[in-house]
Amino acid sequence: MVVVMKPGTPNEIIAKLEKKFESLGCSVHKSQGEDYCLLGLVGDTRKIDPSQIEANDHVDRLLRVQHPFKLASRIFHPENTVVDVLGHKIGDGNVTVMAGPCAVESEEQLLTIAQLVKEQGAHILRGGAYKPRTSPYSFQGMEEEGLKLLKKAREITGMPIVTEVICVETFDIVEAYADIMQIGARNMQNFALLKKAGKSKTPVLLKRGLSATMEEWLMSAEYIMSEGNPNVILCERGIRTFEKYTRNTLDLSAVPMMKELSHLPIIVDPSHAAGKWSMVEPLSKAAVAAGVDGLIIEVHHQPELAVSDGAQSLKPEKFAKLMTAVRRIAEINSI
Amino acid sequence: MVVVMKPGTPNEIIAKLEKKFESLGCSVHKSQGEDYCLLGLVGDTRKIDPSQIEANDHVDRLLRVQHPFKLASRIFHPENTVVDVLGHKIGDGNVTVMAGPCAVESEEQLLTIAQLVKEQGAHILRGGAYKPRTSPYSFQGMEEEGLKLLKKAREITGMPIVTEVICVETFDIVEAYADIMQIGARNMQNFALLKKAGKSKTPVLLKRGLSATMEEWLMSAEYIMSEGNPNVILCERGIRTFEKYTRNTLDLSAVPMMKELSHLPIIVDPSHAAGKWSMVEPLSKAAVAAGVDGLIIEVHHQPELAVSDGAQSLKPEKFAKLMTAVRRIAEINSI
Amino acid sequence: MVVVMKPGTPNEIIAKLEKKFESLGCSVHKSQGEDYCLLGLVGDTRKIDPSQIEANDHVDRLLRVQHPFKLASRIFHPENTVVDVLGHKIGDGNVTVMAGPCAVESEEQLLTIAQLVKEQGAHILRGGAYKPRTSPYSFQGMEEEGLKLLKKAREITGMPIVTEVICVETFDIVEAYADIMQIGARNMQNFALLKKAGKSKTPVLLKRGLSATMEEWLMSAEYIMSEGNPNVILCERGIRTFEKYTRNTLDLSAVPMMKELSHLPIIVDPSHAAGKWSMVEPLSKAAVAAGVDGLIIEVHHQPELAVSDGAQSLKPEKFAKLMTAVRRIAEINSI
Amino acid sequence: MVVVMKPGTPNEIIAKLEKKFESLGCSVHKSQGEDYCLLGLVGDTRKIDPSQIEANDHVDRLLRVQHPFKLASRIFHPENTVVDVLGHKIGDGNVTVMAGPCAVESEEQLLTIAQLVKEQGAHILRGGAYKPRTSPYSFQGMEEEGLKLLKKAREITGMPIVTEVICVETFDIVEAYADIMQIGARNMQNFALLKKAGKSKTPVLLKRGLSATMEEWLMSAEYIMSEGNPNVILCERGIRTFEKYTRNTLDLSAVPMMKELSHLPIIVDPSHAAGKWSMVEPLSKAAVAAGVDGLIIEVHHQPELAVSDGAQSLKPEKFAKLMTAVRRIAEINSI
Repeated sequence: MVVVMKPGTPNEIIAKLEKKFESLGCSVHKSQGEDYCLLGLVGDTRKIDPSQIEANDHVDRLLRVQHPFKLASRIFHPENTVVDVLGHKIGDGNVTVMAGPCAVESEEQLLTIAQLVKEQGAHILRGGAYKPRTSPYSFQGMEEEGLKLLKKAREITGMPIVTEVICVETFDIVEAYADIMQIGARNMQNFALLKKAGKSKTPVLLKRGLSATMEEWLMSAEYIMSEGNPNVILCERGIRTFEKYTRNTLDLSAVPMMKELSHLPIIVDPSHAAGKWSMVEPLSKAAVAAGVDGLIIEVHHQPELAVSDGAQSLKPEKFAKLMTAVRRIAEINSI
Repeated sequence: MVVVMKPGTPNEIIAKLEKKFESLGCSVHKSQGEDYCLLGLVGDTRKIDPSQIEANDHVDRLLRVQHPFKLASRIFHPENTVVDVLGHKIGDGNVTVMAGPCAVESEEQLLTIAQLVKEQGAHILRGGAYKPRTSPYSFQGMEEEGLKLLKKAREITGMPIVTEVICVETFDIVEAYADIMQIGARNMQNFALLKKAGKSKTPVLLKRGLSATMEEWLMSAEYIMSEGNPNVILCERGIRTFEKYTRNTLDLSAVPMMKELSHLPIIVDPSHAAGKWSMVEPLSKAAVAAGVDGLIIEVHHQPELAVSDGAQSLKPEKFAKLMTAVRRIAEINSI
Repeated sequence: MVVVMKPGTPNEIIAKLEKKFESLGCSVHKSQGEDYCLLGLVGDTRKIDPSQIEANDHVDRLLRVQHPFKLASRIFHPENTVVDVLGHKIGDGNVTVMAGPCAVESEEQLLTIAQLVKEQGAHILRGGAYKPRTSPYSFQGMEEEGLKLLKKAREITGMPIVTEVICVETFDIVEAYADIMQIGARNMQNFALLKKAGKSKTPVLLKRGLSATMEEWLMSAEYIMSEGNPNVILCERGIRTFEKYTRNTLDLSAVPMMKELSHLPIIVDPSHAAGKWSMVEPLSKAAVAAGVDGLIIEVHHQPELAVSDGAQSLKPEKFAKLMTAVRRIAEINSI
Repeated sequence: MVVVMKPGTPNEIIAKLEKKFESLGCSVHKSQGEDYCLLGLVGDTRKIDPSQIEANDHVDRLLRVQHPFKLASRIFHPENTVVDVLGHKIGDGNVTVMAGPCAVESEEQLLTIAQLVKEQGAHILRGGAYKPRTSPYSFQGMEEEGLKLLKKAREITGMPIVTEVICVETFDIVEAYADIMQIGARNMQNFALLKKAGKSKTPVLLKRGLSATMEEWLMSAEYIMSEGNPNVILCERGIRTFEKYTRNTLDLSAVPMMKELSHLPIIVDPSHAAGKWSMVEPLSKAAVAAGVDGLIIEVHHQPELAVSDGAQSLKPEKFAKLMTAVRRIAEINSI
């Protein structure tokens, strides 16, 4: 951490601050420039509250050197994390495909789609039982009834289940059924939920918040990991920008950037990012070319009857085409 | 709702869709333009899921006419809502001032500050006992111990208490002490928490999300109101923009805009918006001139020792100066 | 265009407005809903100024149906535009690679890099002679001296030249040398420059503005085309978001979206988007997988001595590796 | 400037870099932390190109200490700049009001409005003769004909004229008529235009770009000042955010922030910011309470007939009301 003092700060004030920082366990290196005096703090500064230092009238601002995350950082954990989900590996260099409907709607709907995506080579079944919706008047999910159907689909197809958990209260119920617990974009900074997920051992799919920076996203991963759960899978699902033709803007730079910064696996959700089925295939191919560890894709056999997000769901034949294209790129990319 | 059909859609498809919309209880008005055919849906369209319609290959896009919120809308509730907090009225045309430390740190700290702000004319005492923090390594609040100190401060000063509630699990504990329950920016779309708050009768201070639109913010108010709690106070606390010199960008347009769209009271938090104490006074004066119902301001007698957000806390003498300035503007503004 | 009237507007006011719109050459379809009355305007509404209508106290807001662009729209021009640059085709289904230094710095520098990228299969040579810089104290380019060196490089390598034009004043000089004239992100809405470029026949590479929507970008293309120049190549170069680890956020959704909305070729600039050389290869591969018509890539043999944007320039051996990877994806993608 | 080296960089590489920086005229202070080694550069680092340093494989990133602007900075010019416009002072502690139509449309329109705003106490007449428009099909202004009408209005009312200049080509014509030359938001980084304006002595009203940071805005002021023109007036006109109910988001924090960072006067344009006439008065009052040096406001006697931006224009009686309110706040604020 580097403390930039305001031009003209008296020497005795600077000396006082130096002592204060030393008392906090840091060693201090002072550089006096023409206008600004800098105090470089050496040591573990993650626990110093920047706001306390900035409250000092003579401090102009702080420049941070260390990343604020540690457990999620590649610097302290150089090898890739591989998450094991009932024997399926995520992050081992292959592309994992998670597919299924946005929401579980009925036994017939779920089993039809589950079998369709299984036949096309999907590895994991997705389906929402608790749905976070912007409007209180929208369908909120089948809740535990939906979880039971997911369990049934797993028994029939053998595919592990990924489903969303939306609050601490229903966490244990969801955990009893899920193989991967998804924390949605709007809950990325629901710290109570992150702590709860950290006390579990079930893998967590952590979606990036609507306008979260990568650093904030990794800090949310850090919350989960610091409570004891190392099985975090990052999921880029598009960020909010000024663009109106797409629902969100898929940030594919997050894929190589996260590979540099962190050892955690990263997957991409092109369905929520674009909000339009016609863009799911090109964005899936792009994600794979960029080096992603997996995809999570909405598929519905009757999207115009889907109770949520039909606009972004692929029909089965489009999903089959996507799987072929994605496999080809994945092969080429791994050469 | 207006459905825009893609150019060249066959007539029989359009006829089919018309029938479908009529079966959903809407009457349909068709306008055939040069390139586009429009279907205007008349009736209560709030429950139609746009995504289902957009999943139709022949639909270009939807144009929404009605606001998606109803209980929060001024159209259906023309007179201002006035929230009563232990006899103090918020939204009655006066400027309510809530003030106090960011976090409750100790009995001595809280009582000192509570008496200081009381003497300067503050109406309500703020102070966080449960603190949502970006980093798991930061101070997370004194929890119930802090709530007990707030209660003591209320007993001594007579000021009602506003404090943050961060999850469903600790909701009942917080409610046992708080006179206003604050839902923070990062929880604005924590729908489980909104529903829980809606089942309570305690007034809720609903902060705007970091990059939430006003419509999303009102939809979150609608969540609370649709569960039965009409006592919602909106709080603008700055939104995320590209600007780096300020922590957030205070959106003062939200004040007149919310007065047009909604009947709920709206207050402003200049401390979190700017993140710098030197900007709190000018922004407070601006908010009052724009017609705000209240302010929530961080005050600390020793900001450089504060355990959170010292940089944005006012020292007591600055707060006194602010109160004088704000009172003058409020008088002029109400002429 | 659909005009939404405020709830409670008197019928005689609505009748007056209907007449007004008819006098502007539109036919009007009225739908009376529960709260809102809608007036659907049919006809060419591109020339109606929305602000004039919205100035009416009884108008709640306008909903636009037609896109505001026409010449750039695929609806009116279904087949792809192919731009011919000295015989090289852009937009014909192949991936065009433009490569070279950010700025022309010297004869030796330019010729060295030109030959290197030529050997690796680049089709077009890039290099800036007039540099728009955020700071007046930064290197502003070699100006006409740089253009002469570009001409020399073309003579030696046979590669056409793409270079930036930054104002109307120097337009003719740049045009005398350039085969493609680049209009930079900060000039995307420099309407005087767009009009000037529209009066030329030289192909124009139009970069997307820093926070421009796709619609605004196409409106800028429309400016050029409406003056008579159909040879517009769109270039996505990253948009501004809250993310700080990358300089900009490459919006690859723009590739499939532009293919739907427009017939113009679209290329991607991964170097400026990321601002970091290590991300150029994964983003280039992703762009090709998404179906882009070309790439524009910064290459420098000594990036740590480059006078601008060294951080994002590839060394020759990295560029060679990228070309191989990109070619493989392009082959697979065209199956 | 502080250079952060990647963890594990060999000592000989660091020693080499130290020498390099010393050769550029800086003295170097090295601090070795646990993970990171820091090199603090002391001296005038404004001319070092950060990208060149970041191109070094061993450099993690740069932390900047000095602001990149110097002439616009209050550090080097502590007293306020006061701009003199035909004897009227801007920046002397009073609130200057500039008012008039968005575009000059006819002699009758301009003179009617000019006299109306003069009667209400406006100091300067605004009116656009060259209009930058997003669509090539919109009205582009009366050009020199409009300038002549502005001159006539000045002769009749005595009010100085502020009008927009949109390119280098027409700069001299505009300068022949204007008392203040406005550079619009979309031209804030049209560096050729900034340099041209810097060679003039006419005061420049520099609008903030649509998504520009305050630093970029001051760098554009620096461009003008570094060419020799010190008469720059900053104008905050709203920035682009995700909010859709307002056209832009007025950033009033820019007022106190610019007063800290710079000595230049700053005014606010509430008409363009909100895009709705009903919000102009509350935002004007807020701007004055925040300490602004002036306002620029659109007024039209028949906004529903205005050829541009009628929606945001005030009718004369609303403008009169605004002037009274603003005057009251200004008086109170200056106590």
